[in-house]
Amino acid sequence: MFESADLDHGIPKATYKREEPKLRGGLLEAQYALKKDPRFAVVILIAGVQGAGRGETVNLLNEWMDPRHVATYAFGDPTEEERERPEQWRFWRVLPPKGTIGVLFGAWHTGPIMRRVRGETDDDGFAHEASEIARFEQMLADEGVLLLKYWFHISAKQQKKRLGKAHERREAPYKRFIKVSEAFLRRTSTGEAPWIVVPGGDRRYRALAFGKHLLAALRERLAARARRTPHAARTLPLPKPVDGLNVIRALNLDRPMAKSTYKQALSEAQEKLNALSRDPKFGSIAVVALFEGNDAAGKGGAIRRVTSALDARLYRTLSIAAPTEEEAARPYLWRFWRHIPRRGHLALFDRSWYGRVLVERVEGFASEPDWMRAYSEINDFEQSLARHRIVVVKFWLAISKEEQLRRFRERQKVSFKRFKITPEDWRNRKKWNEYESAVCDMVDRTSTRIAPWTLVEANNKYHARIKVLKTLHRAIGDAMGKRE
Amino acid sequence: MFESADLDHGIPKATYKREEPKLRGGLLEAQYALKKDPRFAVVILIAGVQGAGRGETVNLLNEWMDPRHVATYAFGDPTEEERERPEQWRFWRVLPPKGTIGVLFGAWHTGPIMRRVRGETDDDGFAHEASEIARFEQMLADEGVLLLKYWFHISAKQQKKRLGKAHERREAPYKRFIKVSEAFLRRTSTGEAPWIVVPGGDRRYRALAFGKHLLAALRERLAARARRTPHAARTLPLPKPVDGLNVIRALNLDRPMAKSTYKQALSEAQEKLNALSRDPKFGSIAVVALFEGNDAAGKGGAIRRVTSALDARLYRTLSIAAPTEEEAARPYLWRFWRHIPRRGHLALFDRSWYGRVLVERVEGFASEPDWMRAYSEINDFEQSLARHRIVVVKFWLAISKEEQLRRFRERQKVSFKRFKITPEDWRNRKKWNEYESAVCDMVDRTSTRIAPWTLVEANNKYHARIKVLKTLHRAIGDAMGKRE
Repeated sequence: MFESADLDHGIPKATYKREEPKLRGGLLEAQYALKKDPRFAVVILIAGVQGAGRGETVNLLNEWMDPRHVATYAFGDPTEEERERPEQWRFWRVLPPKGTIGVLFGAWHTGPIMRRVRGETDDDGFAHEASEIARFEQMLADEGVLLLKYWFHISAKQQKKRLGKAHERREAPYKRFIKVSEAFLRRTSTGEAPWIVVPGGDRRYRALAFGKHLLAALRERLAARARRTPHAARTLPLPKPVDGLNVIRALNLDRPMAKSTYKQALSEAQEKLNALSRDPKFGSIAVVALFEGNDAAGKGGAIRRVTSALDARLYRTLSIAAPTEEEAARPYLWRFWRHIPRRGHLALFDRSWYGRVLVERVEGFASEPDWMRAYSEINDFEQSLARHRIVVVKFWLAISKEEQLRRFRERQKVSFKRFKITPEDWRNRKKWNEYESAVCDMVDRTSTRIAPWTLVEANNKYHARIKVLKTLHRAIGDAMGKRE
Repeated sequence: MFESADLDHGIPKATYKREEPKLRGGLLEAQYALKKDPRFAVVILIAGVQGAGRGETVNLLNEWMDPRHVATYAFGDPTEEERERPEQWRFWRVLPPKGTIGVLFGAWHTGPIMRRVRGETDDDGFAHEASEIARFEQMLADEGVLLLKYWFHISAKQQKKRLGKAHERREAPYKRFIKVSEAFLRRTSTGEAPWIVVPGGDRRYRALAFGKHLLAALRERLAARARRTPHAARTLPLPKPVDGLNVIRALNLDRPMAKSTYKQALSEAQEKLNALSRDPKFGSIAVVALFEGNDAAGKGGAIRRVTSALDARLYRTLSIAAPTEEEAARPYLWRFWRHIPRRGHLALFDRSWYGRVLVERVEGFASEPDWMRAYSEINDFEQSLARHRIVVVKFWLAISKEEQLRRFRERQKVSFKRFKITPEDWRNRKKWNEYESAVCDMVDRTSTRIAPWTLVEANNKYHARIKVLKTLHRAIGDAMGKRE
């Protein structure tokens, strides 16, 4: 993999002086074209052997380009903030919006490589980490990000010379590092996101080789009209039940509960939840609870019964509506990753990332290939959370079509509730069956042992709220190793 | 993942009697449409819980469809033939040609799931195996195969009832099997190849659910005009050296060797190779050696010097030219997988799977996304071989443009050599630089520790042959744990 880079490349000073200004001009031009027509974001990974000129290249790039539209991030040891979240969190944080360029120095590849170099993972663990990165990068490519992965290489001899005395204290023994890196590059190079190896021995060669490839890649993508041609032939139809029975229809939505029973059960459940959240063990986990459901199913009411049991410093409630401009400019899951709670905290989502396979699917806001791949991307996302001891609890609040109509009408009558009902709600209601299908597919494809769905019969609000509280309490208790 | 399948689905007899003939007719029609316009192959995986009707479904399918164009394969314990090859070999063997349907019962998913169920792999090992399968299935999808993965499910109670007394001797404990399977389905479901879960409890429901989905999937793909719209925006340009130096130009192609030295070295090298091939340890490995090179570089001559050292029962020589009709109807690597040698044997390839990134790339026979993804597919392929203790040795025989001209002219003069030179050779020569670039990219992207390229300076045939023999000898000796 490093055959070409091991050659003695070099560029005479005169050639460099002639070529560099042209390159610089071209890069600036490409940068402005991107800014003007912000169809995609550019992520540049800077990786490779210590001493191969990674830092110099980053500095050079910032000199060459308009620094207002380039953001550079170097990742060292994670901060306290970062350690309290899944490893990917700090990379998601810095993904650049469309029209701009993010330069990531020592990004997601560093952990897996260095853990293997130091012997903290074995071959299987390493292979597993590499394939998760390949999936992540595939997602970025599918989301339209122009991902450019540069690997700067020098030979062992060159490294010794470059590092001088610091050689003794280098990050990793050369041979071992190269061996692991080669395997990593092999496993994470794909047709859409290949690693580009840059020979780093000669300063001028390195600058031109890197700069020219970057420019060619930018130009090629700028020239391509569409981000992606949808290829419908590549998705499959999802199955529908041939007897009309599905997980929603199988529910008995009417679960009566007397007000007095409710009041008693509510205060008991809230007390228990409160106690859990004050337990010292709660500091070693975090909770993500999300609420989806039919319009008017009582999501807001259920969330309020949860939050009123908790210290306000411990939780955040996130209402997910149409993405902000900032959010729309980034890969889909970015807007959710940014709200992942620290240890000892809860995040409650009123609607969530499942919008992609619900409203965006049904209303056609997302293309079929895009929502089809979302199931596995969401599963990967929730697995990252679960691995970091974040408890993921997912509620679908289900009401019947008749109950919904009753609630809609009631809302129209009561003045302070009128704002809660919009023409959109009536439109959605017309697509009841399409939504129902989408919900069933969602449950079948994303209810997993690590993040199961709880279907809540919600024609009776009391029943629904108590079920939500009890489920939440049980899930958190399990994660803390408490048995009732 | 099994929420819908756990419901009590059922279809009344009358409904089934009405629906089944329609379904049958539709399937036959789709099958003939596919046969008539054989644009793609269909691979149907039948998997799931024991007792969920997998076998019955396979039989039913064979009843429903024209069995002449459906081939069913059940995979039990591997045969002796199969054990001597990498695990995937037996699946590659049976991939159906375009226009036909292959039904695979207990295919590539079984090994990883059962190894995890039995505790033979840990979480990391399992995750690694699952992601290799996801890569393999992605490759099938990229090659245009319609891959349909059906998972038949029943509840624990249903299984107990179905299996009766045999329940005691079932393949795996239900709970454990479901837990592992769920994780497997999650990791290998993608937008392009999602698992389809079929409730297996009711015979009639199962048949209709499976059959209707199959029919819908066939119809959708038949209706889609092109197999795939190329999306040029998704590939990157590969870098070119900015100083013109590359691994080929860095070679000193003229390595003189006297005839007497050659004769002595040849007989020594051949003797050594012969001794290795007779060593009992040779029975635990296998060898794949491939020869690529410029036209007239002497591949054939080098191969003959290898084979004349070996017992004819131990090796096979494969000349790779344009694919046969049978080969062209299957995924690209199929024609090479079929020739993978058993233990204790050698396969010598005169040209190889690298054709895709050489001639097919340069001549435009393969689209850019197709040859770009080939690098990682080839690396995966060679890794499968290496893991099975197959030594992969790869030679590029390089001659200069002048030397090639001299050899072309000589060939034209000598009558019995004239057949060796064709108008195509002269045409290729005009694209010398494009081929050179392709060779350098190939070396950079596929020379790995597990399967390195050896560049052979071949202006002098004697030198080239001795280098080939010595390299081969060293690689085989290393694999057998012999040091010279």
